[in-house]
Amino acid sequence: MALKTLSAKAAAALDRELMSTGAFSIDQLMELAGLSVSQAVARVHPTKQGRRVLVAVGPGNNGGDGLVAARHLFHYGYQPAIYYPKRPKNDLYQRLVKQCEDLEIPFVDDFFAALKSTDHVVDAIFGFSFSGEVREPFPAVINAMAETKVPVTSVDAPSSWDINEGPPKSGVGSNFHPNVLVSLTAPKPLVKYFKGRHFVGGRFVAPSIAKKYDFDVPKYEGIDQVVEITDNQVKI
Amino acid sequence: MALKTLSAKAAAALDRELMSTGAFSIDQLMELAGLSVSQAVARVHPTKQGRRVLVAVGPGNNGGDGLVAARHLFHYGYQPAIYYPKRPKNDLYQRLVKQCEDLEIPFVDDFFAALKSTDHVVDAIFGFSFSGEVREPFPAVINAMAETKVPVTSVDAPSSWDINEGPPKSGVGSNFHPNVLVSLTAPKPLVKYFKGRHFVGGRFVAPSIAKKYDFDVPKYEGIDQVVEITDNQVKI
Repeated sequence: MALKTLSAKAAAALDRELMSTGAFSIDQLMELAGLSVSQAVARVHPTKQGRRVLVAVGPGNNGGDGLVAARHLFHYGYQPAIYYPKRPKNDLYQRLVKQCEDLEIPFVDDFFAALKSTDHVVDAIFGFSFSGEVREPFPAVINAMAETKVPVTSVDAPSSWDINEGPPKSGVGSNFHPNVLVSLTAPKPLVKYFKGRHFVGGRFVAPSIAKKYDFDVPKYEGIDQVVEITDNQVKI
Repeated sequence: MALKTLSAKAAAALDRELMSTGAFSIDQLMELAGLSVSQAVARVHPTKQGRRVLVAVGPGNNGGDGLVAARHLFHYGYQPAIYYPKRPKNDLYQRLVKQCEDLEIPFVDDFFAALKSTDHVVDAIFGFSFSGEVREPFPAVINAMAETKVPVTSVDAPSSWDINEGPPKSGVGSNFHPNVLVSLTAPKPLVKYFKGRHFVGGRFVAPSIAKKYDFDVPKYEGIDQVVEITDNQVKI
């Protein structure tokens, strides 16, 4: 089955629709999105390959997905650590932080030191609403993720990539090619520039909604919340 | 590992704590509880044994778990149907209903007719906050679940059972012995009267909270949201 992609604009409209006529709360969607990410990490990086997962959390909803994923990874037996330098005063994010604190998941201030003692990185910095310039303190973080030998899983988009156009031509992120991408609900056009392992997650879209937004719900197996996609299944 | 049980009073206090100091929203907890139930159903009743699942939904949070489970079961490839005769005007339940309607999951008015054409029943009528008398229209529904040959999975408690004392000595529910029980967060004392397959779900409890409430988080496997418990693992 060829999977169609969802532009940045369409992804934003879909998100609004899920939370208005779709009647989902952001808590529900973020829980299921973060759960998908945690399942993809468990698939590509079983605990026997090392339990330490560093989750880089951005200031928006992509970061919220990362906080949820960190919590589930803890329950699976991983040892997550969270880098969360820009924290909005939003009640939801504060609650997701508290849930991680109650699990004694460490919040680290120094991403670069933490990167030296981790087995896997989750990039939950920017998602489909990103455009423009990478703001401080994230340029150096993205450069470090581009250069590290530690495998990186990006949530919905490699952070700094343009959702429709892919990696920047120069500067921050131009050399950032994460190992794994978890597209949420549907792949974004940037996937044509992505060469790693690609999963789709977010198994909550009604067929009628997918039809309206002209994308395909991929064929998930059993009770899985993610499905791995091969390159030739994405329709460009 | 021997699992301790959680009394009706302790379960209510735990629920309040998860949503206050634990910082979880009810949307999150219900999503994860319903997801656990859906995974247990998929485990005991794979789609090849029949895709039709009738979900009997009560007026409270146990019913909400059932609505979430029905939605996930749809995504797994089941054909759920929902019996939901007493619907509170609560925003959360109305949203959960809308999410199922958008999947075109049928809501049935006649439980007894629906029971004749289903492969599995989920009993999400009453949970740990139940006590006293079974109100209309549920007595006949519980009697039908007691008498049917279709396998029944109960959510947290067989409906009509006293959470601490088990099945009623006489009347409605005294002969109700579901095939499967999914205890949420921890088994309730009624499990000592339960003889079917027993799962624990709700993989979201922090070790510190479990310690405070003096129960054990069971040893879940991998990314599973449920774990099957054998009788001798429950400490009475």
